[in-house]
Amino acid sequence: MTFFEELSRACGPGALLQDPALIAPYVTDWRGTFTGRALAVVRPASVNEVAEIVRVCAQNRVAVVPQGGNTGLAVGATPLDAGDAVVLSLVRLNRIRDLDADGFTISVDAGCVLADVRERASQAGRLFPLSLAAEGSAQIGGLISTNAGGTSVVRYGTMRAQVLGLEVVLADGTRLDGMRALRKDNAGYDWKQLFIGAEGTLGIVTGAVLKLVPKPRFVATALLGIDRLQDAVRAFGVLQHMLGETLSAFEFFPQRAVALRLAHEPALAPPMGERAWYLLVEASSALALDDAFETALAETLDGGCAADAVVATDSNRRHELWMWRESITEHERRAGPSAKHDVSVAISQVPAFVIEATAAVEARFSGARVLAFGHIGDGNVHFNVLLPADGSIPREDVTAVVHAMVRQYGGSITAEHGIGRYRREDLLAQRSPGEMALMRAVKRALDPSGVMNPGAVFS
Amino acid sequence: MTFFEELSRACGPGALLQDPALIAPYVTDWRGTFTGRALAVVRPASVNEVAEIVRVCAQNRVAVVPQGGNTGLAVGATPLDAGDAVVLSLVRLNRIRDLDADGFTISVDAGCVLADVRERASQAGRLFPLSLAAEGSAQIGGLISTNAGGTSVVRYGTMRAQVLGLEVVLADGTRLDGMRALRKDNAGYDWKQLFIGAEGTLGIVTGAVLKLVPKPRFVATALLGIDRLQDAVRAFGVLQHMLGETLSAFEFFPQRAVALRLAHEPALAPPMGERAWYLLVEASSALALDDAFETALAETLDGGCAADAVVATDSNRRHELWMWRESITEHERRAGPSAKHDVSVAISQVPAFVIEATAAVEARFSGARVLAFGHIGDGNVHFNVLLPADGSIPREDVTAVVHAMVRQYGGSITAEHGIGRYRREDLLAQRSPGEMALMRAVKRALDPSGVMNPGAVFS
Repeated sequence: MTFFEELSRACGPGALLQDPALIAPYVTDWRGTFTGRALAVVRPASVNEVAEIVRVCAQNRVAVVPQGGNTGLAVGATPLDAGDAVVLSLVRLNRIRDLDADGFTISVDAGCVLADVRERASQAGRLFPLSLAAEGSAQIGGLISTNAGGTSVVRYGTMRAQVLGLEVVLADGTRLDGMRALRKDNAGYDWKQLFIGAEGTLGIVTGAVLKLVPKPRFVATALLGIDRLQDAVRAFGVLQHMLGETLSAFEFFPQRAVALRLAHEPALAPPMGERAWYLLVEASSALALDDAFETALAETLDGGCAADAVVATDSNRRHELWMWRESITEHERRAGPSAKHDVSVAISQVPAFVIEATAAVEARFSGARVLAFGHIGDGNVHFNVLLPADGSIPREDVTAVVHAMVRQYGGSITAEHGIGRYRREDLLAQRSPGEMALMRAVKRALDPSGVMNPGAVFS
Repeated sequence: MTFFEELSRACGPGALLQDPALIAPYVTDWRGTFTGRALAVVRPASVNEVAEIVRVCAQNRVAVVPQGGNTGLAVGATPLDAGDAVVLSLVRLNRIRDLDADGFTISVDAGCVLADVRERASQAGRLFPLSLAAEGSAQIGGLISTNAGGTSVVRYGTMRAQVLGLEVVLADGTRLDGMRALRKDNAGYDWKQLFIGAEGTLGIVTGAVLKLVPKPRFVATALLGIDRLQDAVRAFGVLQHMLGETLSAFEFFPQRAVALRLAHEPALAPPMGERAWYLLVEASSALALDDAFETALAETLDGGCAADAVVATDSNRRHELWMWRESITEHERRAGPSAKHDVSVAISQVPAFVIEATAAVEARFSGARVLAFGHIGDGNVHFNVLLPADGSIPREDVTAVVHAMVRQYGGSITAEHGIGRYRREDLLAQRSPGEMALMRAVKRALDPSGVMNPGAVFS
C-alpha cells in the first residue's frame, strides 16, 4: 500500500485532498504573506482518525502540520516550501461534547470555533471569557496551541488559564486522554501544560475541557484623557484599588491614533478635548457598578492621574468609545506601510519603554512615526511604526531597534502571537542558550523523529 | 578532594551539616510519619551556591532532595532510608528581592516564607492571595513545587496561577533565569510550567516572580444550612451569578462535624437549627458588598437551595462562623484514628460522589463513619473516615474503596497534596500508561542521571 493509500484509509477518501486548487487555502497564512507547499491536506472527523493519520505519517517519516482556523499571525500552521509535509486540518472535529453549567465547564473538540463556544456558554448563562478579533474563525485547538490572549486577559488571563483538561495525539499516534474537569489535581506532572503554547510542535490538541465563569450582569465604560503616559500606570493602580477584578479592560492609545481617524473621517467629533494619551476603561460585574465606577473615576481625576473623563451612558455610546480603540488598525493600514511589533514589558515599565523606544526609533529613522497602543493591564504594547510609502526604511532595521529595546527592559518580543515560522530567529536572541537547550530537550523527548510541525518555533 | 570537601567548598563550611542530631529535623516529614536518612544537609545562601552544590552532587552521582519549609503532606521532601542523598534546604535563601506595587508583582527567593510574602504585599497595599494553614512555615519554592492550593483557590486559583517568572537550577547545575515580570509572553515553550508541581524532581526552584492582586476592601460572610448536598451546587450557581468572582470561599461540612465539636465543647451553642449540611460562604470585593450579599442570600433561600442563613455582622461573628469549619480537623483528631483522603471531582459531581462513596464505605466497613467536608468551588473533598480505635479496620482497605470511587467519577486522588513518596503507587492507578510514559520521558529529558529528588512522584 502506498503512503497515500494508507492516509486515505486512515481518514476516509473524501477527507484526503491532493488537488492543488483544493489545497491552496491551507498552505497560505492568514495575513497572506507566506505560501508553502504540502503533499496533501487531511481533514479527519474523529480523534481516532487523527491518531491513525499521525501514526501513518510517523511510520513513513512524513511531517505533519496541524492547522486550526488558520488565523495565526506568526505562520505557525503553514508548511514550508519543501512540500514534504501533510497539513492536518481540525476543521471537521467540531463537536461541543458537553456543557456542565453547574460545574462551570464546557468540553469541546479542538476544531470548535471560538464564537460558537462563547455562544453555547452564553445560552447556558455562563461566559467563556476569551475574546479576540478572529473569534469567528479561530479554533479552540489553535487558541490552546498558541496560548491566545485577546481583550480580557487583564481580568481572566490567557488561554492557559481557561484549560482544565486536554486530549492530545502524540507524535507516534498515541492518544492521551486528559479530559478531566478538575479544578485541583496534583497527581504527577501536569502534562497538559506542555502542549499549551507549543504551537503543535509536541503533539496535536484534539479536545479540551474549558473553564466557564459567571456572566457579568453590569458593565460600565469610560474614556480618560491623560497628559503623560506615566499617569496611565497610576490610574491603573487607583482603578484596581477601587474596582478590583471587575476591571475587565484597560487600553491605551495616543493622540496620533485619534488624529489618524479624524483625518479619514473629518465629520467625526473628537471624543474629548485633545490630550496626549487616552485610556479606554471598562468594568463588568455581578454587582451593580454605577456608583462605584463614578467614584473611582472621580478618584483618578482628583488624584491628578487623569485630566478628563467621558462616561458611556448607554450601549451606543459604549460602542462609540470602543471604536476609537478598535479602529486603530484599520486607519493605520490606510496610512501606509508599517512595522508591527507585539511586545510586552512589566506593567509598571510600559510608559518608560514606550517613551524610550519611540525616541530611539524616531531619532534613528527620519520619517518613521511610532503608533504605540495596547493593554496597560497586560503590559502588552502594539508598538507599530508607520513608514514612508517609498520603502526607504527597511522594516527589519526598525524591528531590530525595537526588539533590542524590549530585551533591555526584560520584555518579550511576542506577547501573544507566538513564534511560528515568522519569529524563529528572534527567539534565539530572546532566550538564553540554557533556555533554548531545555526547550530542545523537551522537543526531542516528545518528538524524537521531528515530525510534528517542523520549522515552527525552532529553526 | 573528597565529596564532602567539594560540598563544603560549594556552600561554605558552616552551611554543611553532618552531625546526626543537626540533620534529624530535615529527614522527618511534617506529619512525623516517616524518617529517612541523609549523607548530609546543605543550607546554601545564594543561587550560585545552589548551582554549585547541584553540580558537585551530579558529578559524584549523589542524589539531591530539595526541601523548603518541610510542611508537605506527601513526603516529597524527605529522603528515603538508603541514606545516599543530600538534603538541600532553601531556608537561608529567603530574601524578598523586589516589590513592584505599580506592576502588581513581587520577586522573591525560593526560601521566603509565605506569611512574610503576604505581609510584605499587604504593606504595599496589595494582596498575595495564596493562603493556607502552614503559611507561617511553608516556603515559596515548596509551594511552587507542589502547586499548592489553600483556601482562596475558588477565586484566585492554585499556586500555578500566581507564578509569572521562575529561576531554577537544573539537574546538572545549570542556572536558568526566567525571572520575568510579564503577563503575556509566548516566546517559545513556557518552560517554567514544567517545574510547577514537579515536586523537585526536574530541578530546584530558587526564585520566582509572583502576581499580586488588589486588596479587597469589603468582606461579607454567612453560614447557610441545607437539607440535601445537591443544594450546595445549586446555591453555588446562584451565588456565582449574583456575586461573580467576589465569591472567595464556598466551604461545606456535615452535621456530624458540628456534633463532634459540640461533644467536646458542650457549652457552645450550635450555629443554627440543625441541618444535614452547612455552607460557609464568603465574598470580598473592592466594591461595597452588603446589599448585594443579602440579596444573593435571599435568592438562595427563596429559590429553595438553602433552608436557613446566618450572616456575620462583625469580625468576631465572622471568626465564630469560620471556626465551625476550621476546627473540624482538630475535633476529628480527638475522635480517634481516621483514614484521610484529599480528592477532587467536577464541581457538579461533589454531591453524588460524597453520597455514593459514603454509602460504599459505611456499608463495607461496619463502625467506620465518614466525615466529608471541603471546598465545593474547587470540587475538593476531604473525604475522611473515622475508624474504631482498636485498629480493626485497615486504613489501606478504606483508601482502596475511596480511590476506586474517585476513579469512577473521573476525579483525582490528590487534589492539592501531591504524590511525593506517599502516593507513588496510587499514581499508577490514577494515570494511564501513556500518561506515565510521557511523564517519565520528561523526567529522563531533564534529569537523565536521576539525581533530582529520586523516589518522589515515581516509584
